[in-house]
Amino acid sequence: MLRAGLIGYGYWGPNLARNFAAHPDCELACIADMSEKRRAQAAANHPQARIVADDSIVRDPNLDILIIATPVFTHFELDKAALENGKHVWVEKPMTSTLAQARELAELAAKKGRILMVDHTFLFTGAVQKMKSLIDEGELGDLYYYDSVRINLGLFQHDVNVVWDLAPHDLSIMDYLLGPQAEAISAHGRGHFDTGLEDVAYVSVFYPNNLIAHFHLNWLSPVKIRRTVAGGSKKMLVWDDLNREEQIKIYNKGMEVATKEGLYRVLATPRHGDMYAPVVPATEALRLETAYFIECIQSGTQPHNNGEAGARIVAMLEATDRSLKENGRVIPLR
Amino acid sequence: MLRAGLIGYGYWGPNLARNFAAHPDCELACIADMSEKRRAQAAANHPQARIVADDSIVRDPNLDILIIATPVFTHFELDKAALENGKHVWVEKPMTSTLAQARELAELAAKKGRILMVDHTFLFTGAVQKMKSLIDEGELGDLYYYDSVRINLGLFQHDVNVVWDLAPHDLSIMDYLLGPQAEAISAHGRGHFDTGLEDVAYVSVFYPNNLIAHFHLNWLSPVKIRRTVAGGSKKMLVWDDLNREEQIKIYNKGMEVATKEGLYRVLATPRHGDMYAPVVPATEALRLETAYFIECIQSGTQPHNNGEAGARIVAMLEATDRSLKENGRVIPLR
Amino acid sequence: MLRAGLIGYGYWGPNLARNFAAHPDCELACIADMSEKRRAQAAANHPQARIVADDSIVRDPNLDILIIATPVFTHFELDKAALENGKHVWVEKPMTSTLAQARELAELAAKKGRILMVDHTFLFTGAVQKMKSLIDEGELGDLYYYDSVRINLGLFQHDVNVVWDLAPHDLSIMDYLLGPQAEAISAHGRGHFDTGLEDVAYVSVFYPNNLIAHFHLNWLSPVKIRRTVAGGSKKMLVWDDLNREEQIKIYNKGMEVATKEGLYRVLATPRHGDMYAPVVPATEALRLETAYFIECIQSGTQPHNNGEAGARIVAMLEATDRSLKENGRVIPLR
Amino acid sequence: MLRAGLIGYGYWGPNLARNFAAHPDCELACIADMSEKRRAQAAANHPQARIVADDSIVRDPNLDILIIATPVFTHFELDKAALENGKHVWVEKPMTSTLAQARELAELAAKKGRILMVDHTFLFTGAVQKMKSLIDEGELGDLYYYDSVRINLGLFQHDVNVVWDLAPHDLSIMDYLLGPQAEAISAHGRGHFDTGLEDVAYVSVFYPNNLIAHFHLNWLSPVKIRRTVAGGSKKMLVWDDLNREEQIKIYNKGMEVATKEGLYRVLATPRHGDMYAPVVPATEALRLETAYFIECIQSGTQPHNNGEAGARIVAMLEATDRSLKENGRVIPLR
Repeated sequence: MLRAGLIGYGYWGPNLARNFAAHPDCELACIADMSEKRRAQAAANHPQARIVADDSIVRDPNLDILIIATPVFTHFELDKAALENGKHVWVEKPMTSTLAQARELAELAAKKGRILMVDHTFLFTGAVQKMKSLIDEGELGDLYYYDSVRINLGLFQHDVNVVWDLAPHDLSIMDYLLGPQAEAISAHGRGHFDTGLEDVAYVSVFYPNNLIAHFHLNWLSPVKIRRTVAGGSKKMLVWDDLNREEQIKIYNKGMEVATKEGLYRVLATPRHGDMYAPVVPATEALRLETAYFIECIQSGTQPHNNGEAGARIVAMLEATDRSLKENGRVIPLR
Repeated sequence: MLRAGLIGYGYWGPNLARNFAAHPDCELACIADMSEKRRAQAAANHPQARIVADDSIVRDPNLDILIIATPVFTHFELDKAALENGKHVWVEKPMTSTLAQARELAELAAKKGRILMVDHTFLFTGAVQKMKSLIDEGELGDLYYYDSVRINLGLFQHDVNVVWDLAPHDLSIMDYLLGPQAEAISAHGRGHFDTGLEDVAYVSVFYPNNLIAHFHLNWLSPVKIRRTVAGGSKKMLVWDDLNREEQIKIYNKGMEVATKEGLYRVLATPRHGDMYAPVVPATEALRLETAYFIECIQSGTQPHNNGEAGARIVAMLEATDRSLKENGRVIPLR
Repeated sequence: MLRAGLIGYGYWGPNLARNFAAHPDCELACIADMSEKRRAQAAANHPQARIVADDSIVRDPNLDILIIATPVFTHFELDKAALENGKHVWVEKPMTSTLAQARELAELAAKKGRILMVDHTFLFTGAVQKMKSLIDEGELGDLYYYDSVRINLGLFQHDVNVVWDLAPHDLSIMDYLLGPQAEAISAHGRGHFDTGLEDVAYVSVFYPNNLIAHFHLNWLSPVKIRRTVAGGSKKMLVWDDLNREEQIKIYNKGMEVATKEGLYRVLATPRHGDMYAPVVPATEALRLETAYFIECIQSGTQPHNNGEAGARIVAMLEATDRSLKENGRVIPLR
Repeated sequence: MLRAGLIGYGYWGPNLARNFAAHPDCELACIADMSEKRRAQAAANHPQARIVADDSIVRDPNLDILIIATPVFTHFELDKAALENGKHVWVEKPMTSTLAQARELAELAAKKGRILMVDHTFLFTGAVQKMKSLIDEGELGDLYYYDSVRINLGLFQHDVNVVWDLAPHDLSIMDYLLGPQAEAISAHGRGHFDTGLEDVAYVSVFYPNNLIAHFHLNWLSPVKIRRTVAGGSKKMLVWDDLNREEQIKIYNKGMEVATKEGLYRVLATPRHGDMYAPVVPATEALRLETAYFIECIQSGTQPHNNGEAGARIVAMLEATDRSLKENGRVIPLR
């Protein structure tokens, strides 16, 4: 039985607590939060857990796992202390505020032989799992583009721009689906209030073989759209996260290219085929992710969303910020 | 009675012929086309018109108006000859292949005191007219962003990329709605076939006061989307060109910003209000545009879509191409 | 401070308990349920309430209010006992299994001077409240028809047909919006499994002045639709309960009728005007309904959804069943 | 080469003329219309055809085929004369104004050994053809229900109610898809203007084995809906005639029924599976129908939409009218 401690019982913490407590191989032994009110809620929901006010549990010798669900700027110190004390670590996204921190943590986890996993929950949804298997099985063929729109009339964050608020979801999904070969980033954005923070941003990510990924991130849209379109040489897909009945549609469509002998030009004509929308399992993503984390610990396997993956996302966020500041300059990712 | 000659009876020509022939103050006197088959069609539909095979009618002293509906690379020579022979000119979009040509034509028209109008038909649709009056009356407040998506599984053009194929529509609408103050352009795109031509492109256009416009142009999308979202300080709108029943939706939504005394941070909270979809008149855009052209000639007024406007669009297309070639470099528009 | 007791802590009971407990003028004093597991949940969520296993609390002299959230066949006995013991009663829908029972309860409540309210929660949603005020203010003009579709791939009920399962919602909304003047009902339906229960049904309700209401109820639909369309002499509306962003759309559309002198026939031509979608408040319906119930008790006012209203709905359900059995015969409602 | 004459060059006539003229085995020899203006149009479009003002061509010995595209009340006399003169007849829908007439024509065609075909164009659309093959191949299993909605803000017809205006489409599609076994009809409707004609109607058609079909027909709807939902024991489908991209969706959904031993009740649980939208060919329906008619003449085969089929639809329209007048009484169809 693994013993887990959770730091941070705010917005997401209760979901983490519920899922770790429900896992048969894990005991939620301890919950830490600075807020008295939240500690009372934690106590009501988890009467068997010890409830504490400070983060000293990162050094508690009785804990095997530390779950870090605190503000981003605290991740580095808490993760580091937990790893140095031999804990396996689950940390919320984004992993850290800087790439240097993320890399240091990934190396520390490797040195200590501990699992460090970044909670990119979306990767464990039925929709993303479905797309991952479609792409890996070659169903789409060679990918041409990956276009993601995540716009909304949103509550502004006070300390981060729209990129750091919304893009960690999309960049981690892209990184999972397309692989870790992203080469460079370019971004444009604008802010419209006296915060100096962008509320609208357009981010392009460049992959080998002319694969281009693009993200529209917007806090000022009157309509809510969460849609990804991806086109490949064989098939194309649309993922509409707000359409619960038909989340993913796969189109047997494409462009037929023929180079006729004696003709100097390429003939490209559209091919229109059937569409199908596979059933997408509705299991709670966090439940699957918790089970995966425990399995990785038990088997000593690296999770795909480990510290390296988390660092790749932070690297892209940093590069996006730099490109935004430098008028869209293309920033290499390595 | 004004006498008009039309050169080019291909895809769009018959619509031009029909509308000019139907105007009470205009006589469609002459139609020229190189194709025998198309000349036969022209003769059947317009028995009163003279049908000819070559473009010498640009110099016909009996014509007041020349309508140029030929391939883009021929526009400059035909327009120039027509203007030099004292004709008023209607030319299809894009106006010319290069900015230098467009400017020369605009200057020539001014010198000759003739009307030179570029057929940006979309500007005369009920939807664009409605948006124009909403924006001009200040209904949206200060504009923050203008986001346009025009994607489709499209027939590839052989000689131009997706930008020159699709963006003339969108850039001319933007230029009409937001005004001629665009300052710079940046674009990224990729081609996936052996043509060297981009089939997917993302174009950003920068305006003063942090207004950002963005265009997603794509020939490889499994779904057809033609949607523009624009957000302002007072209201926001969505124009869905494929939704015939509710083409334009205006949202009384926005972001309320308050700077509380003693607080160092901006408080921005979303405001949710009613939506309404005004009736959009269904009059044929080309009919309105034809009437406007004749009126401008009769009254000696410059049309808003004159040679200067056409040159601005060609300037943006050229700048987009340059930015695509130079890895997204921001290209100033003046 | 009013003291309330709740019988039934199953599917809906916890919501009732939460709302009554949260009302400032009410104390949730007691919760009864036969299931040990549900009693434990009730105790955890409402530590201040007395938790009991049987329904003897209908006679508890310390309670002012009885909330009955048990299966339909038990409503009559529990409501009757509670009223006879001088309680105000809140009962789940449908009110009773037979019209005779519903009428007896309504009379008993009147005789005892107690409030008897049937929980038609939908009447307190923002959407229904909005439609009620639109209709009452004459915004739609004279109503022509009221068409409701509620279809789904649903879990079959074992003891009632699709009408008793789904129609109480729709009939109570219709009765609230159009008034209590329904004159007659006709219904057709079919069952496709060995239960003898209809899984698809079509119900027509006839009002004076040629107003016709119609309901499509279906447990076997591959798509979920919950939509009402209503047309009047001035305007028309669509209520789509699954479209959270634009629940209600009001169309300034209609049919213009002119009888030209000397013409023997009516000329009716469609009028197309703007559409608008008002903001629909998102307050929890049950919270508003709880407050309304307490107010009615405090002020001695009859709620609109009182026993008489509940009896009207049961009368319509009974008439529907009879019409289904008698091959669609039109059953008068009085 | 078959020689055809067309009577009636109004709304639909030009389409008929174009398709018959284009068929390689057919010559459009003659067009008749009472209106001088329409005769001029006919002459312009079909210079090789003889244009006449009266309907005496039904007796023209040089014609093999008569195409009747005149108002319904004239169909019987024209069809009859044409058949008696040994012509094959194509007649617009609805076939006749009364069932007696329809039957007489069907018998006459049989006696004369001539093809009599009713133009139910919708049967030849890609969507209906696709559904027909799906149903015939047993893809949906046993059908449970067939629900059709055809509503709109429509131009009122002056001489027929909404049923005779809209239902011929839907009833003929139903008859084609479900077969000719319809047993009875019941209908309710209301009119709201001084015409005595229903503008809203609900029609139920009963088939063996508890299959129920239902039609919502409405001239007073603010939104345009043309959607059919059909559920079977294996699969279910939705046909949305206004969704050009995904006209037909087939759902691998259903209700799993299990009768557990010792349990007196049926357990029915929903089964949710993939959806797919097959490509629907976009060939013009009328072109396919014209080819089919010519083939039937050449091979002496009865078309499925022959006089018998036309008479079945007229029988249903008559029965619907009677049921409307008799308060929804169920009218047997045989």
